[in-house]
Amino acid sequence: MRANRLRELKRSGTPIVNAWLSIGSAYAAESIAHQGFDSATVDCQHGMIGFDTAITMLQAISTTGAIPLVRPSRNDPAEMMRYLDAGAYGVICPMISTREDAETLASACRYPPQGTRSFGPARGLLYGGADYLAHANEEILVLAMIETAEGLSNADAIIQTPGIDGIYVGPNDLALALGHAPVSESKVPEMVEAIESVRAKVRSAGKLVGIFCSNGDGAAQRVAEGFDLVTPGNDATLLRQTMALAASTARS
Amino acid sequence: MRANRLRELKRSGTPIVNAWLSIGSAYAAESIAHQGFDSATVDCQHGMIGFDTAITMLQAISTTGAIPLVRPSRNDPAEMMRYLDAGAYGVICPMISTREDAETLASACRYPPQGTRSFGPARGLLYGGADYLAHANEEILVLAMIETAEGLSNADAIIQTPGIDGIYVGPNDLALALGHAPVSESKVPEMVEAIESVRAKVRSAGKLVGIFCSNGDGAAQRVAEGFDLVTPGNDATLLRQTMALAASTARS
Amino acid sequence: MRANRLRELKRSGTPIVNAWLSIGSAYAAESIAHQGFDSATVDCQHGMIGFDTAITMLQAISTTGAIPLVRPSRNDPAEMMRYLDAGAYGVICPMISTREDAETLASACRYPPQGTRSFGPARGLLYGGADYLAHANEEILVLAMIETAEGLSNADAIIQTPGIDGIYVGPNDLALALGHAPVSESKVPEMVEAIESVRAKVRSAGKLVGIFCSNGDGAAQRVAEGFDLVTPGNDATLLRQTMALAASTARS
Amino acid sequence: MRANRLRELKRSGTPIVNAWLSIGSAYAAESIAHQGFDSATVDCQHGMIGFDTAITMLQAISTTGAIPLVRPSRNDPAEMMRYLDAGAYGVICPMISTREDAETLASACRYPPQGTRSFGPARGLLYGGADYLAHANEEILVLAMIETAEGLSNADAIIQTPGIDGIYVGPNDLALALGHAPVSESKVPEMVEAIESVRAKVRSAGKLVGIFCSNGDGAAQRVAEGFDLVTPGNDATLLRQTMALAASTARS
Amino acid sequence: MRANRLRELKRSGTPIVNAWLSIGSAYAAESIAHQGFDSATVDCQHGMIGFDTAITMLQAISTTGAIPLVRPSRNDPAEMMRYLDAGAYGVICPMISTREDAETLASACRYPPQGTRSFGPARGLLYGGADYLAHANEEILVLAMIETAEGLSNADAIIQTPGIDGIYVGPNDLALALGHAPVSESKVPEMVEAIESVRAKVRSAGKLVGIFCSNGDGAAQRVAEGFDLVTPGNDATLLRQTMALAASTARS
Amino acid sequence: MRANRLRELKRSGTPIVNAWLSIGSAYAAESIAHQGFDSATVDCQHGMIGFDTAITMLQAISTTGAIPLVRPSRNDPAEMMRYLDAGAYGVICPMISTREDAETLASACRYPPQGTRSFGPARGLLYGGADYLAHANEEILVLAMIETAEGLSNADAIIQTPGIDGIYVGPNDLALALGHAPVSESKVPEMVEAIESVRAKVRSAGKLVGIFCSNGDGAAQRVAEGFDLVTPGNDATLLRQTMALAASTARS
Repeated sequence: MRANRLRELKRSGTPIVNAWLSIGSAYAAESIAHQGFDSATVDCQHGMIGFDTAITMLQAISTTGAIPLVRPSRNDPAEMMRYLDAGAYGVICPMISTREDAETLASACRYPPQGTRSFGPARGLLYGGADYLAHANEEILVLAMIETAEGLSNADAIIQTPGIDGIYVGPNDLALALGHAPVSESKVPEMVEAIESVRAKVRSAGKLVGIFCSNGDGAAQRVAEGFDLVTPGNDATLLRQTMALAASTARS
Repeated sequence: MRANRLRELKRSGTPIVNAWLSIGSAYAAESIAHQGFDSATVDCQHGMIGFDTAITMLQAISTTGAIPLVRPSRNDPAEMMRYLDAGAYGVICPMISTREDAETLASACRYPPQGTRSFGPARGLLYGGADYLAHANEEILVLAMIETAEGLSNADAIIQTPGIDGIYVGPNDLALALGHAPVSESKVPEMVEAIESVRAKVRSAGKLVGIFCSNGDGAAQRVAEGFDLVTPGNDATLLRQTMALAASTARS
Repeated sequence: MRANRLRELKRSGTPIVNAWLSIGSAYAAESIAHQGFDSATVDCQHGMIGFDTAITMLQAISTTGAIPLVRPSRNDPAEMMRYLDAGAYGVICPMISTREDAETLASACRYPPQGTRSFGPARGLLYGGADYLAHANEEILVLAMIETAEGLSNADAIIQTPGIDGIYVGPNDLALALGHAPVSESKVPEMVEAIESVRAKVRSAGKLVGIFCSNGDGAAQRVAEGFDLVTPGNDATLLRQTMALAASTARS
Repeated sequence: MRANRLRELKRSGTPIVNAWLSIGSAYAAESIAHQGFDSATVDCQHGMIGFDTAITMLQAISTTGAIPLVRPSRNDPAEMMRYLDAGAYGVICPMISTREDAETLASACRYPPQGTRSFGPARGLLYGGADYLAHANEEILVLAMIETAEGLSNADAIIQTPGIDGIYVGPNDLALALGHAPVSESKVPEMVEAIESVRAKVRSAGKLVGIFCSNGDGAAQRVAEGFDLVTPGNDATLLRQTMALAASTARS
Repeated sequence: MRANRLRELKRSGTPIVNAWLSIGSAYAAESIAHQGFDSATVDCQHGMIGFDTAITMLQAISTTGAIPLVRPSRNDPAEMMRYLDAGAYGVICPMISTREDAETLASACRYPPQGTRSFGPARGLLYGGADYLAHANEEILVLAMIETAEGLSNADAIIQTPGIDGIYVGPNDLALALGHAPVSESKVPEMVEAIESVRAKVRSAGKLVGIFCSNGDGAAQRVAEGFDLVTPGNDATLLRQTMALAASTARS
Repeated sequence: MRANRLRELKRSGTPIVNAWLSIGSAYAAESIAHQGFDSATVDCQHGMIGFDTAITMLQAISTTGAIPLVRPSRNDPAEMMRYLDAGAYGVICPMISTREDAETLASACRYPPQGTRSFGPARGLLYGGADYLAHANEEILVLAMIETAEGLSNADAIIQTPGIDGIYVGPNDLALALGHAPVSESKVPEMVEAIESVRAKVRSAGKLVGIFCSNGDGAAQRVAEGFDLVTPGNDATLLRQTMALAASTARS
């Protein structure tokens, strides 16, 4: 089975730079995956992407060395299994608020006896290889998003759940949940402390810690703070910004 | 019938800033059309866009004030009529090299007696209005691309063809045709002269002259040179550049 | 943020006429939205519409002044958030049978602190505007369907749930649930009374009350009875009827 | 090979009622094909339908007894062969203006030695049967549209071209071409005479004559006049009309 | 309403051969449905098939006599109702482990008073007929998959649940659950006994018992063992095998 | 730029085994491209594949080492350029009957000064690399199909046309054109001689010669005869055969 390079990068302490895909287009996905990212996440929660389109995006990412990940719309085992069968090499699952949530997530992504994933790897066989079944439980990366007040207070239990490979902080939802503006690199002390606290706990547990950032600068800052995986903005936002700049520059 | 605002901008001497869409995604198209462009061109020649997708992109552009245009894959009347029926308010037709080419183009975009467009305006009725037939011949904008050596030498005849509302220079193909590198704002004297010569001729003829540019700066320069319509780069290129920058900044 | 015109119509006591879209086609959706409706509902419960198609239909509706709504397949927060992110300005949620159901629904459609909607408004920003986050909680319309026996008996509790803006009666499912034929304008006394009882309660609570009707005549009758929002039939049924009539007339 | 029932209807003198499909939706196509039509034509000229969608519409029609036809965007052999390979049992080809046009059309739809159709019947085998090749030349129906001034003056030559099974009058384009308003059942004497003249000539030649009509009443009138095949309006127009009526009735 | 031929085959003791569709293509589905199968199952659990594509596959199957079935991604009433509305004549529901699971499944597929299916049969009306509502509860086939250790131990309760028409054994997941390799025709005694035990119980209960098999030989063996319905492999696996053989033979 | 491995295989005298894709599915394409083929051809002439789908299939093939080729629907420069821009590394163009046809084909696939290909490589840049423009003229493979009587008699002129890299024999159309049954490995002497004559001429000219075959055995035979590139059957035919065999074996 193809190794999950993200695990190697984590082991070697190399920062992982992850692309965020919310535009439902395999051509956009492929274009982006070629730009030097270690992984690319198809956002099936807030992205404009249905399952039929997500499959083609996973294929497009697979033309490059970037590892394909998916954010499912919810912590639903059946939905997550579909993305794994479609060749995702990991999930970033939103709204994990309790130990029980984390156990459901971990179980859904592992075949028995470690979990309850149903057998039928489909495209996973093509991307991963013929020995997919033998190794999938070790290669597939399972990241839980901590982004609610409840999740924050249950951080220890979530982080320590067996089968959870790491945590991905959702700073926007977390900010809203704590009563602040949804700013990825918030300077509000409560946010700064909350995020640093999660980061430190995940690192202590020897697991991977990632975070969504507004852009490249925010991501560089998060790497400096000790995050393993950073997402320098999402594709639609960056596309809008660069096009708006092109238009206004043209008029200047 | 909805007025074609590009005609008003031309009349008032206001530069027209046009978005170039090569990503086959209605969401990307809508995102871009909201960024301050006067028009947005669905590129069905070099874009990754089939007819089924082009329709949804034209709809997406129609949620904004940007005027929807299409670049067909060729000077083929039946193909161009399809885009007009789908609600394009103009075409930018590639590879117009002779007066005869220009006449074919002009005829395809006008209903009899001015031309030979077949009746069946479909989505055109929704975007344009119930009186589409009565006004379409005046509102639809027909731009011919001059981008071959033959087109360059026939520029006068092409420009003066009745029904041709203007010229859109394709600097990359023109450069290749003349034996130069495909650089939009080429400094090669032959290119500089050729483009300025076309621009001046179109202006003398009182018609609209547009050009593809590499980016916002290139577009601003072309506006300063006296072009009526400029395209500050294409969406896929700008997306790749901004994503590559985000990735490398994150690692810095 | 763009105002939700349905709220204004409710305030002014103007009947709201809503189109029902079950054909998975952005062109059909756009064609219909131009025919004088105040809103158009993409039916993702019984309609032949997956998420990829629903997005293009919401875009198509957005080319007109009709307010885009969605009926989700179930009272599932993650699913409903996807439609809101895709630009729906309201949901009509099926099978709300208890106060708890209503609270789940209301919470899913509001950002904290009023609810638990996750942040990532995507196309909502394009349709609603850049200040979407600040106003979405007031503009998004949340309608609960009462269409089960349990829902009928819990009508008061459902209607009074904070965050529920109104009730949409599903007369067909309600009829089946009560042991009657699924006829939208049923004359069965139990149905007549049940529907009038719900209508009156919603009106007393100062909320919006809507209902599905078989056709224009049924809708006119429901307006006369005091409903705020009426749906004069669904697109596929009306299309079948008009085509069948065209065929039989041709043979006559 | 499945018999082309349209040929039997012609032989028996039974009027053929044909549905016109311009909405790119397999569900709409299937819904309509069930309403009592003898055939259903996928309009790839003015319809909002790309090839990927056309295939699914041909499949949808094939769930019923209606014979699937296609109107290609132009008299292009390669394009027409694609529709035949996709299971169309006939074509209605627009803009046939000369004997040479008619010969090109006839040739494209027949395998050698009668024509030049390329071999690869794909879905045709599924719809037609395993012996498709042996009978396709006799079963596939080839109708030429007469709808230009030139076509009108060359009517005899077109009608008599071997391999042309009949003529389909395009009254809207013909009216425009002759300087009149595009009204399907025009009362303008020149139109009335032109259409009757074509009809009579085709009948004399023992071939099938069809025509597009505005609606069921127009179609009934054309049947009474002696047309073999009538199209009682197009789907998008009828859908818009019935939805507009439903909306206005609801408000009455 | 169109009769569900699978019920007749069961009554007459004729083995049912079922095709398994995991390739998201209506053309592949139609091609396969023509090859002599009694039914064809669109696999929306492990197949690469979103809802938009599933609809077109159900249409494609409906061009043949094969009965269209769907495997949903989970035992979710709202999801299953969507497939039934889209014209599936039965479901094969994965991961039924308890009597409660079986009751949820049975209820979701029947209209009141037998169940809780919501009314809106959409494409079901086209495939089934205008009297769909009157007969759907008897015609729709509901099969529960037993494929977990818990399901195995609750087999009696599941089998006897009213509204469950039969059991479909998932040998791969069952093997994994019991600690064995996922081999469809496993020779491991525990597997052999478990499967035979389920088969015998379902037969005693007078219900239909089906099973997934690796290929035609495995299916023939299962028929010989007394299974009512067999699936001789899945489309993607068989396609890969036949293509790999073609490639290697070409090189030999 | 990525090297076109087919050229290396030709140089080294290694037979090239090519997959033929007529099912419009990126998942099927990817599944097949993994089965040991050197190249995979997306058949846009007889395949059930529109441009939107072709793009995703080319992406799917690009996840493997198989070289992506396209058969366009006709010898149309604008259409062929679209496939090259979408990342095809070669074309197999149908119905090349004259030297002029061959020149048109060769010119369409090469940038100036060798040809007239328009600049805008889009996905070609992603698959080929950033230096695409500098090398495309040498890497892109241009194969002309000889499959008409005229093409057969003009074989020398076609083969020797500069820019034509080789010939692909279409034995089915050629057989029909010569009055024989369309059998790929026909034993009819005229067919045997015609095909051998073309093969020998192409080999003498030092160019690549390929041919379509019914299956693996046919392909092995053609390799033995001295063909450089063989296609062992098409995907839909092989899928139908293997599924029919599975069904009949199940019943045996």
